[in-house]
Amino acid sequence: MSGKVYLVGAGPGAPDLLTLRAARLLGEAGIVFHDALVNPEILALAGRAKLVPVGKRCGTHSTAQTFINKQLIDAARKHPVVVRLKGGDPMLFGRAQEEIDALSAAGIEVEVVPGITAALAASASLKVSLTRRGIARNVALVTPRIGKTERESDWMASAVAADTAVIYMGAGEADAIAKALIERGRAAATPVAVLENASLPCEQWHFGSLAELGEMAQRVGAGPAIIVLGDVLRERVHAESRVHELLRKAV
Amino acid sequence: MSGKVYLVGAGPGAPDLLTLRAARLLGEAGIVFHDALVNPEILALAGRAKLVPVGKRCGTHSTAQTFINKQLIDAARKHPVVVRLKGGDPMLFGRAQEEIDALSAAGIEVEVVPGITAALAASASLKVSLTRRGIARNVALVTPRIGKTERESDWMASAVAADTAVIYMGAGEADAIAKALIERGRAAATPVAVLENASLPCEQWHFGSLAELGEMAQRVGAGPAIIVLGDVLRERVHAESRVHELLRKAV
Repeated sequence: MSGKVYLVGAGPGAPDLLTLRAARLLGEAGIVFHDALVNPEILALAGRAKLVPVGKRCGTHSTAQTFINKQLIDAARKHPVVVRLKGGDPMLFGRAQEEIDALSAAGIEVEVVPGITAALAASASLKVSLTRRGIARNVALVTPRIGKTERESDWMASAVAADTAVIYMGAGEADAIAKALIERGRAAATPVAVLENASLPCEQWHFGSLAELGEMAQRVGAGPAIIVLGDVLRERVHAESRVHELLRKAV
Repeated sequence: MSGKVYLVGAGPGAPDLLTLRAARLLGEAGIVFHDALVNPEILALAGRAKLVPVGKRCGTHSTAQTFINKQLIDAARKHPVVVRLKGGDPMLFGRAQEEIDALSAAGIEVEVVPGITAALAASASLKVSLTRRGIARNVALVTPRIGKTERESDWMASAVAADTAVIYMGAGEADAIAKALIERGRAAATPVAVLENASLPCEQWHFGSLAELGEMAQRVGAGPAIIVLGDVLRERVHAESRVHELLRKAV
């Protein structure tokens, strides 16, 4: 008899943005394999479990992935409930498919428990809806590849075509991203917000236009950051600029 | 003194896919204004609250929206905790901005609590990641407008450009959507899945190709349905076709 592996979304960071199902499974788990960026307060919910950190949220090397797969399979042969805890949602930029396929091939039952993805946490924190009547009827969630081949650069077509675009794991290459998107036809004046540490007490917002994105991203620290762009942000970015203008005059 | 209004995502339907924060706020609320489609088991968490249904999830008339805004403002003047509960996530196709803006204009504090959106619930249920190394680096979440002016039809550009597209509130016009997307350049053979009642025990999947979408959607019942399309689904759709083939031969 083999246990069951749950691929669980840890959400954006705040412990109470975990789902009820995720919290229950953490409590039941005999072992939890978690991304390095998962909040320790969330891990504390896994009171009975052995905690095994397995590399970084992004950039996991393929050898490392094979090793994670093997660890999950071995764990399911020992524990009835195995949790693989991933930042955000497992099915968005989370390499979940490789783990699902490896477990299925080994005859191990898998269940996926969705989590709040950073785009939704950012939108909530910003109080700006990602869609809006008459302004935005669609949203693209993309992760960039700068300087790669044309086929792999289709993320740009998606980020240019969408009314609202949310760019994951892009703050480190923000300047190149902004230049590439403007070159492909996105207006340089498109309002942009960059959010660092979404949903945590230390979260930080930076506002500006697409042309200013490179400069904005330089003010971002070491935490995970997300870039949101589109006309839905116009009023919010405008309001922030006015506040900055008043502060500058007051000094 | 005025209370605070929480715009809360109820998630896709399963009560335990609510966030911990949402569950806590429902328990504290003096009054809950909810979409018609919210699961009664979720409403049962609001033990002390007066429950006020406010129209349908989609298709809310603008006069009705103005009336909802007024009800929220009035409620915040009587109750410390007011919850506005919306299916899925409030900031995706949820008309949240109109409520946020009306409350802010009335000087009432607003907080948005994100929820699991149907695209993520569908992906989890299907066990197919929306992104996948070498196949899909981006996802578009769109809602269609069939037969409207060119400007308003930009949802198609986004659904065609994205590696994976998730179409909300489109099952009723599935045939026209498929024809429009194929005409705009999306391959007729693109694998498609339609999910009805995501995350609930009665959920139903339908698999096929974009060319078959119209016919697939005719088998969908009255529940909310979501359409997922893209190459990430190829193996899953292929496996389902083989099962169907075997079943047909066995009969």
